[in-house]
Amino acid sequence: MTSPKGLQADGLKYAKTIFETVRRMSADTLGVTRQGYSALESDVLDYLQGLGRDLELEISADRAGNVWMTLPGRDRSLPAFVAGSHVDSVPQGGNYDGLAGVTAALTVAWWMRRQNFQPLRDYTVLMMRCEESSFFGKAYVGSLGMMGLLKPSDMMLSHRTQNLTLGQAISSCGLDPNDLTTGKPVVDLSRIAAFVELHIEQGPTLTSNEDIRVGVVTGIRGNVRHKKVICRGQTAHSGAVNKEFRHDAVMAAAALLNTMENRWQEWLDKGEDLVFTVGVIKTGETAAISVIPGEVSFTVDMRSLSADTCERFHTLLLEEAAKLEAERGVRFEFDKPLYTAPGHVDPALSDRLSDAADANGIPCMRLPSGAGHDAAVIGGCGIPVAMIFIANQNGSHNPYEEMQMKDFMIGTDLLWHTVKAYD
Amino acid sequence: MTSPKGLQADGLKYAKTIFETVRRMSADTLGVTRQGYSALESDVLDYLQGLGRDLELEISADRAGNVWMTLPGRDRSLPAFVAGSHVDSVPQGGNYDGLAGVTAALTVAWWMRRQNFQPLRDYTVLMMRCEESSFFGKAYVGSLGMMGLLKPSDMMLSHRTQNLTLGQAISSCGLDPNDLTTGKPVVDLSRIAAFVELHIEQGPTLTSNEDIRVGVVTGIRGNVRHKKVICRGQTAHSGAVNKEFRHDAVMAAAALLNTMENRWQEWLDKGEDLVFTVGVIKTGETAAISVIPGEVSFTVDMRSLSADTCERFHTLLLEEAAKLEAERGVRFEFDKPLYTAPGHVDPALSDRLSDAADANGIPCMRLPSGAGHDAAVIGGCGIPVAMIFIANQNGSHNPYEEMQMKDFMIGTDLLWHTVKAYD
Repeated sequence: MTSPKGLQADGLKYAKTIFETVRRMSADTLGVTRQGYSALESDVLDYLQGLGRDLELEISADRAGNVWMTLPGRDRSLPAFVAGSHVDSVPQGGNYDGLAGVTAALTVAWWMRRQNFQPLRDYTVLMMRCEESSFFGKAYVGSLGMMGLLKPSDMMLSHRTQNLTLGQAISSCGLDPNDLTTGKPVVDLSRIAAFVELHIEQGPTLTSNEDIRVGVVTGIRGNVRHKKVICRGQTAHSGAVNKEFRHDAVMAAAALLNTMENRWQEWLDKGEDLVFTVGVIKTGETAAISVIPGEVSFTVDMRSLSADTCERFHTLLLEEAAKLEAERGVRFEFDKPLYTAPGHVDPALSDRLSDAADANGIPCMRLPSGAGHDAAVIGGCGIPVAMIFIANQNGSHNPYEEMQMKDFMIGTDLLWHTVKAYD
Repeated sequence: MTSPKGLQADGLKYAKTIFETVRRMSADTLGVTRQGYSALESDVLDYLQGLGRDLELEISADRAGNVWMTLPGRDRSLPAFVAGSHVDSVPQGGNYDGLAGVTAALTVAWWMRRQNFQPLRDYTVLMMRCEESSFFGKAYVGSLGMMGLLKPSDMMLSHRTQNLTLGQAISSCGLDPNDLTTGKPVVDLSRIAAFVELHIEQGPTLTSNEDIRVGVVTGIRGNVRHKKVICRGQTAHSGAVNKEFRHDAVMAAAALLNTMENRWQEWLDKGEDLVFTVGVIKTGETAAISVIPGEVSFTVDMRSLSADTCERFHTLLLEEAAKLEAERGVRFEFDKPLYTAPGHVDPALSDRLSDAADANGIPCMRLPSGAGHDAAVIGGCGIPVAMIFIANQNGSHNPYEEMQMKDFMIGTDLLWHTVKAYD
């Protein structure tokens, strides 16, 4: 590896100061807590706007409270290249989930000023609010609000510990919740040419790779979920009932999971994108060590970049369960499946990221995003979106997430080269 | 099938009256409840002693409160042939678990008197107390007490809902708990030639067979148990972490259960006696649908007539778990295994039962007992014991247990023919 130079070397101190300042502002006992639509989130936005003013950016807030900071281009009639992410965090979260994308976008603006570089079109840093669902049970509130896609019922959602609704929290920031539920965007979408969100990877793919520390996202996985599948068998004495007479709910569920895990590997070997998780499993209240279990319930979460893959694997799950029902005299009861469509990234914009990586000697891989992002909401409204992922240890949504600044600067450099080469 | 005759026909009304009277005495909302060392248990014993007096049996109680009712033989110097079981039940239990063995033994005494049959040796009906562990968490209290094998600490065990210790319950029946913890029997074991316990089968083997409705028990399964096995993996985002990077505790546990179920079938095919049960399984407190599970705990209960089979299958469990640990990067933590030795029946006495069945045209099979019984305690003290099982639907320890009187009378007839042919 060569030593960092250009933005990667010179921008480090600028970016590091942002991370450290915001961490101090939002520190809790273990990590950071920046609740969406809180006074603290507003304080952090104020601090970042101060940095924007230092760079003589044009600053405005939309009616959802998201902040737009624009470095004017040479041709103001062209729609802008927008980069950014969200500033809020989960409770006791890490400092980088969201803030990395904002800091990268701002560092690129700083670098443009320092290089006296004026792009052809406006370059805008977008700092969004309330992406995390932890406090009010609703994700992407800032970007959905921006698109007018919140529902009046969303405003009644309660804070997980405080006597506060989401609508009240939004109002407390001087905003009108009614503006965000009209079905119409509160910003002029025709003024946005592209949106790029840089984000820490929430899985281990990049951090497990020694050479490639940044990635271009191929899509955002959709999912099919069952909140509750119940397998019903028949309780009986664990000593007195021989194998041939058993209808053991736990053994049937274990057989189903094992079968699905094997099928999953087969599908991966065929090149499908798929993850399959049973996050929660438990036997009934009256279960006991000496009783053959008559009931066990579990969750199912399957995700893929392809809605078709999700649906076909879901069908396979039902088929395999039906086979086990016949073989074992048990019954699987599936609750209503919940569907989330995959989020699509713009292939041409993603190619521009990959091309910029190639042109500038930045090792880069393509990889899917398992988690959802504001970029999916924005992309869903017809704007070309793409994402840059940065290697990150220990996942996210916990105080132990750990992005290396060296990796972050490589990703920021990739954003810079992409913006520079855009026109 | 020919119509019942002899004891099977003539004894039906006598036995039925006993069952119906005791059911009325101990009825609860759903089934029956006869707590060990309760006033109700004493009332039931009083009622049954009244029947013994009608038959001019010699009645005494031992210092554990068990009642012995003897029909004197022609040679009083010979040790007695003893038959019986326990009179208590689990809460909301069925009427036959325990009471069937007492009723059968008493019905045989009634039949002897009616036939003017006097056996060579004494024939004794033994009615034991407190076999069930449901109320105080300790099983076989009456028979263990008879053998002096209770521990002082047992007397401190608390009632599951009342402010009452086992010692207090025993005292309330006019007995001294200290008599039962000396390590020495409170009865003269040399006066017992044999003990036969008739009991409902607590599994479905006999009730699934149209022709053979009674069985001779080949042994009482011992067990190896783990109250808690914890599989530890690594929590992570269910969407963001691909299969190759997962350490999914639930998938690892499912693989272990599935493997052990397959091995179990292989061992059965080789002719080993074995049952394997995971009665309770649950993921950790913080488990969620969208989190790869980092922890799941479960119970293990494996039973066999052969202590060697239990131990070898337990070793296999540990080996298979170790393989999965290496393959999947998870850890299985087993708590201290709990061992219960199999209870042995006397082969010669069991052959006498089979011979009596053959000689009298009673279809009969050999089968193991999965549950434990007073007979195992008594057999463990050097007395030849054997057991007769009766077909029974819906298992036991629940209000839905359902023995057919026709089957019961066949088993009682088998007991009678065995006693008659004993000398």
